[in-house]
Amino acid sequence: MEFKISRELIAQIEQYVEENREQDLKELLRDMHYADIAEIMWELDDADSIYIFHILDSEKTAEILLELHEEVREKILKELSPKEIAEELDELSTDDAADIIAELPEERQEEVISELLDVEHAKDIVDLLRYDEDTAGGLMGKELVKVNENWSVLTCVKEMRVQAENVQRVHSIYVVDDENRLKGRLSLKDLLTTSTKTHIRDVYIPKVDFVRVNTQSVEVARIMQKYDLEAIPVVDELGRLVGRITIDDIVDVIKEEAERDYQMAAGISQDVEADDSILNLTRARLPWLVLALLGGFVSVRLLNGFSNAMNDHKELFFFTPLIAAMAGNVGVQSSAIIVQGLANNSLSGSLWARLVKEVSLSLLNSSILALILIAGSHFILGMGYDVGLTVSVSLITVIIIASLIGTFVPILLNRFKIDPALATGPFITTSNDIFGLLIYFSIAKVILGF
Amino acid sequence: MEFKISRELIAQIEQYVEENREQDLKELLRDMHYADIAEIMWELDDADSIYIFHILDSEKTAEILLELHEEVREKILKELSPKEIAEELDELSTDDAADIIAELPEERQEEVISELLDVEHAKDIVDLLRYDEDTAGGLMGKELVKVNENWSVLTCVKEMRVQAENVQRVHSIYVVDDENRLKGRLSLKDLLTTSTKTHIRDVYIPKVDFVRVNTQSVEVARIMQKYDLEAIPVVDELGRLVGRITIDDIVDVIKEEAERDYQMAAGISQDVEADDSILNLTRARLPWLVLALLGGFVSVRLLNGFSNAMNDHKELFFFTPLIAAMAGNVGVQSSAIIVQGLANNSLSGSLWARLVKEVSLSLLNSSILALILIAGSHFILGMGYDVGLTVSVSLITVIIIASLIGTFVPILLNRFKIDPALATGPFITTSNDIFGLLIYFSIAKVILGF
Repeated sequence: MEFKISRELIAQIEQYVEENREQDLKELLRDMHYADIAEIMWELDDADSIYIFHILDSEKTAEILLELHEEVREKILKELSPKEIAEELDELSTDDAADIIAELPEERQEEVISELLDVEHAKDIVDLLRYDEDTAGGLMGKELVKVNENWSVLTCVKEMRVQAENVQRVHSIYVVDDENRLKGRLSLKDLLTTSTKTHIRDVYIPKVDFVRVNTQSVEVARIMQKYDLEAIPVVDELGRLVGRITIDDIVDVIKEEAERDYQMAAGISQDVEADDSILNLTRARLPWLVLALLGGFVSVRLLNGFSNAMNDHKELFFFTPLIAAMAGNVGVQSSAIIVQGLANNSLSGSLWARLVKEVSLSLLNSSILALILIAGSHFILGMGYDVGLTVSVSLITVIIIASLIGTFVPILLNRFKIDPALATGPFITTSNDIFGLLIYFSIAKVILGF
Repeated sequence: MEFKISRELIAQIEQYVEENREQDLKELLRDMHYADIAEIMWELDDADSIYIFHILDSEKTAEILLELHEEVREKILKELSPKEIAEELDELSTDDAADIIAELPEERQEEVISELLDVEHAKDIVDLLRYDEDTAGGLMGKELVKVNENWSVLTCVKEMRVQAENVQRVHSIYVVDDENRLKGRLSLKDLLTTSTKTHIRDVYIPKVDFVRVNTQSVEVARIMQKYDLEAIPVVDELGRLVGRITIDDIVDVIKEEAERDYQMAAGISQDVEADDSILNLTRARLPWLVLALLGGFVSVRLLNGFSNAMNDHKELFFFTPLIAAMAGNVGVQSSAIIVQGLANNSLSGSLWARLVKEVSLSLLNSSILALILIAGSHFILGMGYDVGLTVSVSLITVIIIASLIGTFVPILLNRFKIDPALATGPFITTSNDIFGLLIYFSIAKVILGF
């Protein structure tokens, strides 16, 4: 059922644009969803997508603007006058409009706001611009249905019809007092099944989940997920109802959070996409590579310190990439599981129990690997048993230490309120490389004596 | 606003349980959300959490059962008779009830189903059990509000009041024909703002997004996200309306998908948690470690092949972990960005453009790193410029090749319909280790001649 863009469609659109066949284009795009049109515009040249944007009517273009890839949106916004942008924003909900304004350069922001036609809408948008984008205030919208606890259900229904005109989706009906302080809620189901003669203060549910304007968005996401909420009201410092957050905004927060952790584990420190500029990508990637390089310097020095082993046991140096790789892989596995457990709040039990478990797990895994290694180094690589034994004993030790580092570094960071995801990826592989090689050569020195 | 479990609370509950103070416990837990109680039970001993489960009433326990950690749920279900389980399920929505039944051993499933009181509910649950859990059928619930296109709005409102009794949240009102085939929808807003005298067939919106029972759940998630849907109807092969999927179920799909990709990138091949058994964790982690070990064997042989370089240029061997680490890190960075781009459907442009971009990016990054390396190897490590130069030239080449492997292997896998996430983590680091070392020593041989 999902729409798929074909090369043929793109080619046809390009042809229509070239031949200036406005009517045919309109016809072609008429029944398409705005998200699909946004996807098409992402595939087109800048000039073509700007052309398409101009021939569509503003009800559709406003939604398209919202769905567009950031890069395309920036280009299109540059082409539009403040008045034209304001016309688009008049069609959007307050939170979406505020998000788009926030992307504009500051001097343009004011110009656009002064061109907004609907004064109430403009006031709401300006209000939303005050909040940090990573907080409940930055996520919330102003569109909601609220009723006064002192109203009768009849007044309430009348008022709601008016309010509902401005609200795309009615999630909950919030109940406030005369000071606009959040008191509770009326469910939609109640609305459908309750007699119209009742009074609000007698039927509303006084228990209502809410968040404050300055609650962090990841925290809002966790609350809404945990309690299975589709919308949550937002109150200010005085408990006054100032907005609501819906689950679709939270879906984006959850996705961004997961992507950030994923990128962090891969050694990418900023939120980037494959299609970002080379400069942005370098900024996100280079710092971790420099870290790995400096870690590499340490390992060079370390191997240099053991260089007299080369006289009698040069094979030891053939195993260094193997030891480093195993230490790195084990470390990443352990840390990833812990980072996820911390993110989901699903770690239970004592540190001691975790230590015992991690050591048992590594002992089991590393023993199996050591057996493969002894057999392999003898039969496949043709090395002596003394080397095989040395490398195997080292491997077991390295794996245990690497898994302990992978497990406890994220837990420690989390204790000190540092993002544990920092401890995955290049950080853990680099430090485990160093520890791994140090352990390996130290053990080799003891067993082989050099 | 979020509930936090304190050690004191857990201690208090444990004490109450020990002293058998049922009333105090009930009092303490009365106003708590079921998700919070589930969290508490996860922290308690098995016996204690079973005790708590038994003293609460079934309206609450049913929801708790749903929120419990899988391990605790399994233990509690074992303690309950089929009749008791059926009582819990009678309180739940069809999709949640079906999910819990699916977790039971097969012989118990039938026993439980036969004990369900509400025959309609039981029929719906049995129907849902037919579907694969990774499809729309496996996600959907039976609770929905639907009206016949031939009804008047008046009949419709009456019927809806009855239907809404069984539906926790009314998302959309679906319109069907006499054969139960999905025709369109009525929005809740329409319901609030339309006069009751109209006929359904004259007011419904014939355009409605839907998925089929066998649509994959990740696909459903993508559609609902892309089109900003809070619920989507599900139709069978004949276009008949059989269920609906709500956004809260999709939130779980999105989270699981992100976690799976994350784990894959970390070399964990099954969905595991930190608190899973050692055997499960080994099964998820060991295969990747064996792969890395076998890759290590290849690198041992490779270095062995270049062992005559040890006579005059033993420093070369000190750099092997550094080269392997850089190749691995660059590969993981490139592949992670591509895998994410593929998952989000956000890659645009030709393969050729991507190739040019990736090479430019690597050239920029690796040149900066090479400068640091030349300086570092001379001033910090005290090596000759010939070694520094050799390693630097190798580093630049290795980084370019590693980034190309990281970029194009996932794209290739995706073309052949293989999950590109497989190409991140240990797979890419292991293959890049090998290629990296091969390139390094080949270049060294050319420059230094050995």
